Amino acid sequence: VDEAQHIARLLVSCPDRHGIVAAVSGFLSDHDANILSSDQHSTDPEGGTFFMRMEFHLEGLLARRDRLERDFAEQVARPLEMEWRFAYGDRRKRTAVLASRDDHCLLDLLWRWRRGELETDVVCVVSNHPHHATDVAGFGVPYHHVPVAREAKAEAESEMLEHLAGVDLVVLARYMQILSRDFLHRLGAPVINIHHSFLPAFVGAEPYRRARERGVKIIGATAHYVTEELDAGPIIEQDVARVSHRQSVDELERIGRDIERVVLARAVEWHLQDRVLVHENRTVVF
Amino acid sequence: VDEAQHIARLLVSCPDRHGIVAAVSGFLSDHDANILSSDQHSTDPEGGTFFMRMEFHLEGLLARRDRLERDFAEQVARPLEMEWRFAYGDRRKRTAVLASRDDHCLLDLLWRWRRGELETDVVCVVSNHPHHATDVAGFGVPYHHVPVAREAKAEAESEMLEHLAGVDLVVLARYMQILSRDFLHRLGAPVINIHHSFLPAFVGAEPYRRARERGVKIIGATAHYVTEELDAGPIIEQDVARVSHRQSVDELERIGRDIERVVLARAVEWHLQDRVLVHENRTVVF
Amino acid sequence: VDEAQHIARLLVSCPDRHGIVAAVSGFLSDHDANILSSDQHSTDPEGGTFFMRMEFHLEGLLARRDRLERDFAEQVARPLEMEWRFAYGDRRKRTAVLASRDDHCLLDLLWRWRRGELETDVVCVVSNHPHHATDVAGFGVPYHHVPVAREAKAEAESEMLEHLAGVDLVVLARYMQILSRDFLHRLGAPVINIHHSFLPAFVGAEPYRRARERGVKIIGATAHYVTEELDAGPIIEQDVARVSHRQSVDELERIGRDIERVVLARAVEWHLQDRVLVHENRTVVF
Amino acid sequence: VDEAQHIARLLVSCPDRHGIVAAVSGFLSDHDANILSSDQHSTDPEGGTFFMRMEFHLEGLLARRDRLERDFAEQVARPLEMEWRFAYGDRRKRTAVLASRDDHCLLDLLWRWRRGELETDVVCVVSNHPHHATDVAGFGVPYHHVPVAREAKAEAESEMLEHLAGVDLVVLARYMQILSRDFLHRLGAPVINIHHSFLPAFVGAEPYRRARERGVKIIGATAHYVTEELDAGPIIEQDVARVSHRQSVDELERIGRDIERVVLARAVEWHLQDRVLVHENRTVVF
Repeated sequence: VDEAQHIARLLVSCPDRHGIVAAVSGFLSDHDANILSSDQHSTDPEGGTFFMRMEFHLEGLLARRDRLERDFAEQVARPLEMEWRFAYGDRRKRTAVLASRDDHCLLDLLWRWRRGELETDVVCVVSNHPHHATDVAGFGVPYHHVPVAREAKAEAESEMLEHLAGVDLVVLARYMQILSRDFLHRLGAPVINIHHSFLPAFVGAEPYRRARERGVKIIGATAHYVTEELDAGPIIEQDVARVSHRQSVDELERIGRDIERVVLARAVEWHLQDRVLVHENRTVVF
Repeated sequence: VDEAQHIARLLVSCPDRHGIVAAVSGFLSDHDANILSSDQHSTDPEGGTFFMRMEFHLEGLLARRDRLERDFAEQVARPLEMEWRFAYGDRRKRTAVLASRDDHCLLDLLWRWRRGELETDVVCVVSNHPHHATDVAGFGVPYHHVPVAREAKAEAESEMLEHLAGVDLVVLARYMQILSRDFLHRLGAPVINIHHSFLPAFVGAEPYRRARERGVKIIGATAHYVTEELDAGPIIEQDVARVSHRQSVDELERIGRDIERVVLARAVEWHLQDRVLVHENRTVVF
Repeated sequence: VDEAQHIARLLVSCPDRHGIVAAVSGFLSDHDANILSSDQHSTDPEGGTFFMRMEFHLEGLLARRDRLERDFAEQVARPLEMEWRFAYGDRRKRTAVLASRDDHCLLDLLWRWRRGELETDVVCVVSNHPHHATDVAGFGVPYHHVPVAREAKAEAESEMLEHLAGVDLVVLARYMQILSRDFLHRLGAPVINIHHSFLPAFVGAEPYRRARERGVKIIGATAHYVTEELDAGPIIEQDVARVSHRQSVDELERIGRDIERVVLARAVEWHLQDRVLVHENRTVVF
Repeated sequence: VDEAQHIARLLVSCPDRHGIVAAVSGFLSDHDANILSSDQHSTDPEGGTFFMRMEFHLEGLLARRDRLERDFAEQVARPLEMEWRFAYGDRRKRTAVLASRDDHCLLDLLWRWRRGELETDVVCVVSNHPHHATDVAGFGVPYHHVPVAREAKAEAESEMLEHLAGVDLVVLARYMQILSRDFLHRLGAPVINIHHSFLPAFVGAEPYRRARERGVKIIGATAHYVTEELDAGPIIEQDVARVSHRQSVDELERIGRDIERVVLARAVEWHLQDRVLVHENRTVVF
């Protein structure tokens, strides 16, 4: 943990051109930073967009942050027209988890978090169902039961927003209520959802039943950022499992649960590690 | 090959009820057949449909076929309201392959066939492109070049049907022309197509380009029986490969080719082995 | 649950010969049983071993068991030299879980069990570590902490055997002590272990470290029945995940945990459903 | 192709320390090169080994190579104690393929090469079997039949070396003779082999038979660089397929062929793109 205060990540996107890597790595080198890992991607070396993630170690980073950011803005970001941000190892993101009746994604995230796999503080769980309260209490996390009546959705969302004040990330761990556009605007934080199909197949309700009816031989799950359009946001991760004519819809759901929780966990982990950059409704995952 | 004349498969579907397995296996046992393998499936033991495939060995089968079929019809099929057929090991199905510009599925099928993996006679290859002639000749298979002009599609289809007279199966090995309803009716044989996406995602043209635009993390291919509705027929087999932001559309196509040829080959192999039964636009694959 | 008392499974193995399926299905049909599903396998139709699993529904089964078994023994099993057993739906197997420090397999099994995915009674958890007590208590399952000192292993095993009296299955959920030959004999119940490698690669200790050193590109996990020879028992299930030079040993362990818990759960589920038959140190999984 | 003359790759390995990326990217930037892609890996930021692959575009590269290399050696490589090399886009590697009886890997490579998937010149095929001559001729590649008698292996290897003079890469496409240490030394070029198992499981002969006997549920294939120790060289790529008790050894071989050809093709493609770096009997694959 002490070590974390000397570690940061720099995320950059800008129009691709000559000399970006040299400029950024030269800047970090000049400021005594040691690059731990570096990933980059260009949509097109001619006129495309360039993305970079650099993780670096810099002794005494805490005291040097302001100066580092100011210098970077002037010396590198402005001339190269960059969008950029530094993420600091000692500033853990604050995460809230939303769940409905199913507990597999919720508990899986909490297990991983307790085991140290997720670099975050889980600040609360909010659910429209009351029955996960005991389980969640076992992890030492506050549990807020916020029922969502059809005719009082706005009130419910307002109550939820109070619980979610100040979070950096909301994870929909099979939360089955559609969040309103207004809610997303007021929340102002990224929301990751797990959809129980291999998007773009089976957008919307009951994907396993529809997969069964279409007779697919493989089912899947998709973790994506939530946007206003249902199940249409940037995809972070997907995975699949083989099925056959033997499986009923119930069995597809059961097989699907194992995919869902792993896909969601990977997406959340990568987001927390600042590995996911969004560009034109797609993601670059470093 | 001699051995093949003593081997047959019995395919059955009927309303599920008590005693079907006993009736069929008793019948075969009484006729001195030795069951080599048996698979069965019921959509629902109460009121569902029952499917069965039994492969058996029966010495002197050639001389006993007519009697066997007559007895089966009377003693088993009629009382149990079965649809049924026997497929005999010495009656190899006659297969034609249709291809367009891409050769990966075409050559892969011909390689497998030459290696003895496909239990069929490949009677001809038909293509709207001329340039596979030399390759196909190397396999000793007739090659018919039938150009398909937009304004003369009916004539082209008629010419194709002449080449396809008497075939038991047509394989669309990345054949990129849409076959008319009339063609399918006049052909009167099953047609297996390979679609270069993970159906039902990306029905229609340019699935790799659209997969790239949607930012999926996994691409796939689907082998299905052709019906009048585009890319909507019963799915026989699917498989997938993992991709990322790094792959261009060209690279997706390249990765996809490896999936396509394997998925198509499996579907064709299973069809030729009488393993695929169709029910309500889905398949049971034994 | 009431329905379960009318359901049974018949497991059979015998020398392959003509008429087995007819004999068994005829017997069940004559006793008014409705076959729900049936699987069979022959190692070789000529002189091999034949395996079959039939699940059937028989109204009033409870009262008819003795008669059914007696008749089957006389009319079918004896003439066909069968090994056989009936497993009844209302006699749930009694399962104990053994664990060490790691909790991922343990918690995953308990959670699946609570969800109803595992057809068993979990009678206790035994661990050489004390710290899962609270978690296990949350599932309402007794927890026995039995430390295993190197010089007092026999005493520890005796104490464990007391807790395990009467169980039908022991699951080693990453239990890291090697069980003695004597323990296995006295236990007299099948033991399923999860080994954290793709057997037969990396038998024994520290498989992830050795996988890293060998530079493999895929890691795996293996669920198998425990025999006296370490990691050499019949394999029930395996699965894998792709890795690269990027992952440290710690990260391989983390990726591996996700494979381990799913592979173990599948093996346990299939065993509990009487789907796993052992033959010559291999399994037939129906 | 013309474009290729302006493109090069720089491969680097050196002790990890501050400022490497800055030094290399600064050097390339100062020489007007535009970095197209860049990958890097460090075994340990403290005292480990650093690896980098940079692909760049430099107008007029042909005339500037000598100067570029001389400058790089002096200004970057020497102070940072680098091992390094430039690979130029217009200098295609010369590849020879060795095969035995099976043709699936051989034909697959030739077909990919003809499609333009492999960035190389295939200069010849050498086989201890005569019967691929016609197929290989169809690709316009010389075919040398060099029988390998047990008592005259040295002579055979000498004859092979004559055919292999000047090649940059030898691919063993299911070549079933063990190459002697002497052969490897005299060849002086990297050799990529496809082994038909998931190494380190089933080193040596008949891996599919042994996989069947062990009862594994997944089989695999491994492409690796050949070293003097059998099947122990650095692994480049592996892949797997699921199997069950149903498959005979013949069927495992058939399923395996589909894995082998894809795994070998990937390894060869990556090698030809200078993506594979070897370190302590492991590979870094960028």
